[in-house]
Amino acid sequence: MVPPTTANPRPGGRSARIQNSVHAAVRTLLEEHDRAQLSVPQIAQLAGVTPSTIYRRWGDVHELLADVAVERLRPESAPEDTGSLHGDLTAWMEQFVEEMASPEGRAFTRDAVAFGGAGRPACQCAAYTREQLDTVLNRARDRGEVAPAGQTVVDHVVAPLMYRILFTAETPGLDDARALVDAVLERANAAQTTPTAGI
Amino acid sequence: MVPPTTANPRPGGRSARIQNSVHAAVRTLLEEHDRAQLSVPQIAQLAGVTPSTIYRRWGDVHELLADVAVERLRPESAPEDTGSLHGDLTAWMEQFVEEMASPEGRAFTRDAVAFGGAGRPACQCAAYTREQLDTVLNRARDRGEVAPAGQTVVDHVVAPLMYRILFTAETPGLDDARALVDAVLERANAAQTTPTAGI
Repeated sequence: MVPPTTANPRPGGRSARIQNSVHAAVRTLLEEHDRAQLSVPQIAQLAGVTPSTIYRRWGDVHELLADVAVERLRPESAPEDTGSLHGDLTAWMEQFVEEMASPEGRAFTRDAVAFGGAGRPACQCAAYTREQLDTVLNRARDRGEVAPAGQTVVDHVVAPLMYRILFTAETPGLDDARALVDAVLERANAAQTTPTAGI
Repeated sequence: MVPPTTANPRPGGRSARIQNSVHAAVRTLLEEHDRAQLSVPQIAQLAGVTPSTIYRRWGDVHELLADVAVERLRPESAPEDTGSLHGDLTAWMEQFVEEMASPEGRAFTRDAVAFGGAGRPACQCAAYTREQLDTVLNRARDRGEVAPAGQTVVDHVVAPLMYRILFTAETPGLDDARALVDAVLERANAAQTTPTAGI
């Protein structure tokens, strides 16, 4: 799991290597242990660093778990281009709900929320989500399609799905994602044809 | 802070007394300590119970914090009756956002989310919210007003506010709550007058 050390690291390479090793150690340990059982010395040993390296950089095991969670929730590629806003947004939200509603996705999201620290955004993952949505929406505008504001999609598609995932026993599925996407796009189109109709 | 022992407790009174004492001890300790510093022996001492009583009932300090959080988030009275759905829902959501967006509300919500346990609803507080909303909505229907479904209000008013509180640096305010209420009620009224318009 631990990435190999390169012979000729970039500037900042040591710091990145430490992060990679420590994150990989956490992910490995989480496959076999409950997150409450993880300790800094245990993680340090597996990552091949000293415990004080971890304490200096992350503070404690909770901060480290949050950091691993955010890294895992970071999207790896640009949203798929299916040729239409409806197709792009549906595909992206289906993938989102599959990822977030999985037991692993829920656990990582809870870590990110719980340990994200006071007074700063609980989760960088919300910024990632917004960026990906803006890519989809801007692409639609470039095609000449009517597209709702990014904040509107966050409020009325992303937020309802995350609320169900975090606060209820319900596991939202692909149908829920599709229905919310359909509704937000219908409203954007209706607002476009009758400008006085509001959001 | 610890409630007095009554001379003639109801059936189940001992269990309720223990819960009250332990919850009160946690709330007292949270006024002066960071939640990460709380320990079961410390709580037990202040509550006048043995540590094993706490371990038996709550498992660990995280479960206990979640339980205190849910109890705190439980509404104490029925929603105010202002005479109209718009008034009732606006008043209720204003109170909700004030409570939830406060530093204390955020911290308790994070505890409830983070430690609510796997495989069951993260937070009984979502059920409390839904009950209160249904009271407001049923009251409106009894008056003959058009009211959206409870799930619609959760999806499009509660969820966007909670998402901003938990995942972004933004602190939603009364204006945000009012705007979301206005929008959901406008849509319910529009759907009523033009039944084909969708949600």
